[in-house]
Amino acid sequence: MADQVVKALVFDVFGTVVDWRTSVAAEVDALAAKKGWTLDGVEFAMRWRSLYAPSMRPVRRGEAPYRRLDDLHRESLRTVLQEYEVSLGDDELEHLNKVWHRLHPWPDSVPGLTRLKKKFILATMSNGNVSLMVNMAKFAGLPWDTILGSEPARNYKPEPVVYLTGADWLGLDPSQILMTAAHNSDLQAARDLGFKTAFILRPTEYGPNQHKDNEAESDWDYITNSMEELADKLGA
Amino acid sequence: MADQVVKALVFDVFGTVVDWRTSVAAEVDALAAKKGWTLDGVEFAMRWRSLYAPSMRPVRRGEAPYRRLDDLHRESLRTVLQEYEVSLGDDELEHLNKVWHRLHPWPDSVPGLTRLKKKFILATMSNGNVSLMVNMAKFAGLPWDTILGSEPARNYKPEPVVYLTGADWLGLDPSQILMTAAHNSDLQAARDLGFKTAFILRPTEYGPNQHKDNEAESDWDYITNSMEELADKLGA
Repeated sequence: MADQVVKALVFDVFGTVVDWRTSVAAEVDALAAKKGWTLDGVEFAMRWRSLYAPSMRPVRRGEAPYRRLDDLHRESLRTVLQEYEVSLGDDELEHLNKVWHRLHPWPDSVPGLTRLKKKFILATMSNGNVSLMVNMAKFAGLPWDTILGSEPARNYKPEPVVYLTGADWLGLDPSQILMTAAHNSDLQAARDLGFKTAFILRPTEYGPNQHKDNEAESDWDYITNSMEELADKLGA
Repeated sequence: MADQVVKALVFDVFGTVVDWRTSVAAEVDALAAKKGWTLDGVEFAMRWRSLYAPSMRPVRRGEAPYRRLDDLHRESLRTVLQEYEVSLGDDELEHLNKVWHRLHPWPDSVPGLTRLKKKFILATMSNGNVSLMVNMAKFAGLPWDTILGSEPARNYKPEPVVYLTGADWLGLDPSQILMTAAHNSDLQAARDLGFKTAFILRPTEYGPNQHKDNEAESDWDYITNSMEELADKLGA
């Protein structure tokens, strides 16, 4: 594979571009206050998110057909609500489920992406479905050129087909694409397929006591602390 | 189907948003001058485009597997070059084939889309493949939120699956989506599926003597002369 100039950047989104933890927690806390529930929004968010990887596993293993993340999120949300012994009407549940469409970016994300967009194609490479990613982009001002990732491939990262479908649709060799993520495992999966890699440290994605992805665990092509630092390093 | 408020606009692109005829002709004329060919760039462009609909037909009829438009364009280009009794090296042919990635917008397209983007989700609903649409957007400054259309559905308009896959990926009912095109047949196909419709008159898409799509042939929801007029009518 020729070592070619980077033409496109593709991004993990949850945790790398947006702060899902405090965004979900804030909406849950507001809802709890309205409903008179006694619960902690951050804990609720963390529990909900903890069901994310298990919910995708049957699809990745080929044991279940593809279902979009909105649907997996809804199933996990029902589980968490039951655990907390609280309930919501259908419309309220649907609205809360779509909190993942309303996540706030890290402070450096929009300024950094806006600079990077002038020089590169920018696309998502997320497990979020297309409408989730599009609505989030409108909400948060994320300047994607297009949405790639799980729904086009009908599978979930880190399955190779997700990354490779994205490269194929961009008409690029993986060596022309820089996969950007705050998660070492995501970068390793992409590197194994020939993608360039950029790590962005997000030391509070899981809160103040985060015990994974606190450092780059390999010699990724770029290792940075923010989207703006990545733009600096790429001359954007 | 509920008559709901429009949330997203999806666009035909060739002819509706960009002026393929003069864009292709200009590059062909420049190449002809360089090569010493005696030919007319506009005629060449028109002949190349005339092979567009026939090239998609076997896919639409299910007689051939999906191939992306770049590949159909390349096959048609080889035919046209043979007809003109001229030839190109592989790299030159590939570069000329990608002239469809470098089409110039009509003067009102970028200002109109920029206004519309503040109020609506904007996506392509074109037969162009994803990389063609992404590269054209970078070249022409088209502010799409995402690329939909033929490649996600692995088929070509006016097959219903192309429009319906787009609606499904946006998580919207067709009645929440405004299909925008300069071609009456495209709007009819979308209306038949429940989409809202907007006609933009492009009276010189095929040159000064254009003899089709010179007027709205049905009572489309919006009938306009430019993207900016559409933005006016939608309060964007």
